[in-house]
Amino acid sequence: MARVSQEHLDARRRQILDGAALCFARNGFHATSMQDVLKEVDLSAGAVYRYFGGKEELIGAIVTEVLAEVGDAFEAAVGQNPPPPPDVIVGRVMGRMLGLRPGMTHEGVSVFPRLIIQVWAETLRNDELSKALDEGYAKVRTAWVRLVERYQETGMMRADVPAESVARTMIAAAQGFVAQMALFGAAPVEVLQEGLRGLMSMGGPAPTDPNRSPAG
Amino acid sequence: MARVSQEHLDARRRQILDGAALCFARNGFHATSMQDVLKEVDLSAGAVYRYFGGKEELIGAIVTEVLAEVGDAFEAAVGQNPPPPPDVIVGRVMGRMLGLRPGMTHEGVSVFPRLIIQVWAETLRNDELSKALDEGYAKVRTAWVRLVERYQETGMMRADVPAESVARTMIAAAQGFVAQMALFGAAPVEVLQEGLRGLMSMGGPAPTDPNRSPAG
Repeated sequence: MARVSQEHLDARRRQILDGAALCFARNGFHATSMQDVLKEVDLSAGAVYRYFGGKEELIGAIVTEVLAEVGDAFEAAVGQNPPPPPDVIVGRVMGRMLGLRPGMTHEGVSVFPRLIIQVWAETLRNDELSKALDEGYAKVRTAWVRLVERYQETGMMRADVPAESVARTMIAAAQGFVAQMALFGAAPVEVLQEGLRGLMSMGGPAPTDPNRSPAG
Repeated sequence: MARVSQEHLDARRRQILDGAALCFARNGFHATSMQDVLKEVDLSAGAVYRYFGGKEELIGAIVTEVLAEVGDAFEAAVGQNPPPPPDVIVGRVMGRMLGLRPGMTHEGVSVFPRLIIQVWAETLRNDELSKALDEGYAKVRTAWVRLVERYQETGMMRADVPAESVARTMIAAAQGFVAQMALFGAAPVEVLQEGLRGLMSMGGPAPTDPNRSPAG
């Protein structure tokens, strides 16, 4: 048997994962067969099954990888003192996620939003996927909670709301924005950042009306 | 042929739609067959096909109905002067949506969040559904834009961010919160409301730190 380098093995694995992600994003998990994946990556069944036992393993590997990338992007965005405000964090994390693997597009748009919707749907019926998603979500939530606590300690945010609730709300805004990109077409991350800045201005006086009391 | 009352026809239609929604929420659109729906509603094929031609028509009718309900809930929540702040609006709309048809639960939780995820996934491959969802989204977005403009006119929100961006962000937060309910378990709407109140406090001085300048 010919010896193959680790780089070759890694590249092959990458090729299969990206091809499978494209298929799932395009047609959903259920309507995609292993035949579709083989055709997409232009490899033999033997070549693909050496790496992955089937669709379940493929989607599991894709989800694990995307969650790790979200975690990394978040760590990179947060590590500053004082902490950047939420609109800056969201811009950095989502910008990095959407910029990953620029070749992976569907009708000219990053494949990630569509893939994420399909993963959510499949998660509702797949306990292993559900566990992986739970763990990834818990990690991002914990990181957001720490960040919100720093906002509160430094007086950037009122301290009488649970940090956990703000963390969940921030993640919800990002998740919902991704859903909108999949459902209604691409939108620049700046839209979400502007929206957050609008919301963030509501508790205090509006910049256009400097004489208004903070309590108004 | 026996004459049947309009109430009977309506009740039968309601029964079929609710049963189909339960099946789709439980197993997804693809993995649900018309046989599953017939079994769920305990009716003959003839009785069901008199109302709906198949799964596509069922999911189309369910989506149209849910979108109309979101629109109604939103109209009811907004009609006040001065306009209620976003956390109040979100509490009213989501409270009403989750309280609809209290019997429709999956493992003790409202079936709507799961159903919505399944609808999103199916929308990616179904042009008619996509059109219906686009229209429903456009309506809610227009209503939110009007509301944000009122916030800005009355000085409740800084006026230098596009109202459209705030509208999309508010809808994203609600959509993402619904996704979290489906994926990670039920959570009271108060979590989202608290989170919004935290964010809303960030642009101005925090209540715990009255001496801080608004620009800080």
